[in-house]
Amino acid sequence: MIAVDWGTTSLRAFLLDEGGQVVDVRRSEQGLLQVAGRFAEVLDSLIGGWDARLVVMAGMVGSRQGWHEVPYVAAPAGVSDIAAGMQALPDDALHGRELWLVPGLQCEGAGRVPDVMRGEEAQLCGLLSVLEVGACQVLLPGTHSKHVQVVDGRVERFATFMTGELYAVLRQHSLLGRMMVDAPHDDDAFAQGVLMASNGGNPLHDLFGVRTRALFGQLAPEQLSSYLSGLLIGLELAGAGERGDHLHVIASAALAQRYVAALALLGRQATSHGEALVARGIHQLACARELPV
Amino acid sequence: MIAVDWGTTSLRAFLLDEGGQVVDVRRSEQGLLQVAGRFAEVLDSLIGGWDARLVVMAGMVGSRQGWHEVPYVAAPAGVSDIAAGMQALPDDALHGRELWLVPGLQCEGAGRVPDVMRGEEAQLCGLLSVLEVGACQVLLPGTHSKHVQVVDGRVERFATFMTGELYAVLRQHSLLGRMMVDAPHDDDAFAQGVLMASNGGNPLHDLFGVRTRALFGQLAPEQLSSYLSGLLIGLELAGAGERGDHLHVIASAALAQRYVAALALLGRQATSHGEALVARGIHQLACARELPV
Repeated sequence: MIAVDWGTTSLRAFLLDEGGQVVDVRRSEQGLLQVAGRFAEVLDSLIGGWDARLVVMAGMVGSRQGWHEVPYVAAPAGVSDIAAGMQALPDDALHGRELWLVPGLQCEGAGRVPDVMRGEEAQLCGLLSVLEVGACQVLLPGTHSKHVQVVDGRVERFATFMTGELYAVLRQHSLLGRMMVDAPHDDDAFAQGVLMASNGGNPLHDLFGVRTRALFGQLAPEQLSSYLSGLLIGLELAGAGERGDHLHVIASAALAQRYVAALALLGRQATSHGEALVARGIHQLACARELPV
Repeated sequence: MIAVDWGTTSLRAFLLDEGGQVVDVRRSEQGLLQVAGRFAEVLDSLIGGWDARLVVMAGMVGSRQGWHEVPYVAAPAGVSDIAAGMQALPDDALHGRELWLVPGLQCEGAGRVPDVMRGEEAQLCGLLSVLEVGACQVLLPGTHSKHVQVVDGRVERFATFMTGELYAVLRQHSLLGRMMVDAPHDDDAFAQGVLMASNGGNPLHDLFGVRTRALFGQLAPEQLSSYLSGLLIGLELAGAGERGDHLHVIASAALAQRYVAALALLGRQATSHGEALVARGIHQLACARELPV
């Protein structure tokens, strides 16, 4: 089968053998924002030559702005609940293929505001099949970072944090960003930011502090973007769990490294897992749905 | 004399009589960002025809990016300390005029990060001359909102909050902004935002809640910008003072109204003062420096 992770800004396809092992991977920058409705054409070109008939897709491709909207499944939800919410596209959607979409999850009433995810549920299904533990805490950092509580092998509840997007808009469009220069990640400045944010101050004041600490020579222009990253990740992690907690982090290597470092500063252990878990999760869902993998 | 408030994005000039009463006002959009170094030309054109010889300027015009950099005066500082830090421009800077610049204030060691202001110190001098009380709490909302503690008639310490700038970048450049439509201010949505933010949640999660509350129909697209404004102002005010405190707010009428409403929701009284206080403050400084007002 072919597992596809199709998000707002990226597209990845995995060719899997019957046991779910990854045989080949193809990537593209053709996220939803670039595709502009040409879903069949873009997918056909990406997976051309792969002879698997079954294609299962997760991510924003199943949203209102995607190829076909699949309703959210309500948490608490496990692999079988998510598999039950999968939907097939019409037979003629892509010549010679059988196309399915994985639903996202919604979580209402557990927190102060309702919450949603699309794509992360597939990574979580992959993680659950690897861990085989009933309860854990999972972090999926990114543009919209997800904090997930797993109980009895199901996604019990989750909350989203706008960390990555806030970093990006401040870096690109704020006065703070104008003071920054491109530079390699600075571990020390990052750690200072994490500790400042976790120290209980007002985030709006701490953000202005990026500017004043530079004005007063406490930070060099090359350190500012790492300091801002530390401030925002520290703010995200403040209140997410207790000292001594163990967390699972699912992210690209560079991002996982930052989060694991920040968690360590806050006295928490973490195990990081690569983003390829999504392929394993999609395979699990296809098996649970009894599709011809 | 002529009092000038010259900031990053705006320029205002006040013609004052000997007692400091405003006789005439002229405004321009020629803030520092627009002026591009043509300070003398822009000022000459704005105050042309006014025959006062003395011109005293406050704001970012006295910063490194301005006409001439005037070093910050260290808080605690009162009117006489600020007046002592004023600097004259050379005689030939503007034909037929005597030009002075008001210094900004810096505040180091009082808080978690050092802090600075330029322009607000002139408004504070105006307020101090009106109030004639020794101690008070002052809020100067804006792009970079200032919270000021006045003790013994002097600016004791202050902290800056990036509220206005964060609102602007999120409104213009984030996914949240893309969901919003232009609409009149919505008191109810604003109040919901203030109360949500003051309720002790994680700000990065509350920001994502703008999106999910819209997705789930809890807020209409027309309400989202007021809700976001309430969230950010509520976050700024959380921890700034206690229930029952009385604050002085110096801001434009529309902004003052939002802050006074937010403070009332949090159980705090406020008196608002118009931005014309800056002219009075500059007059006070000129008198304290014994200039020919």
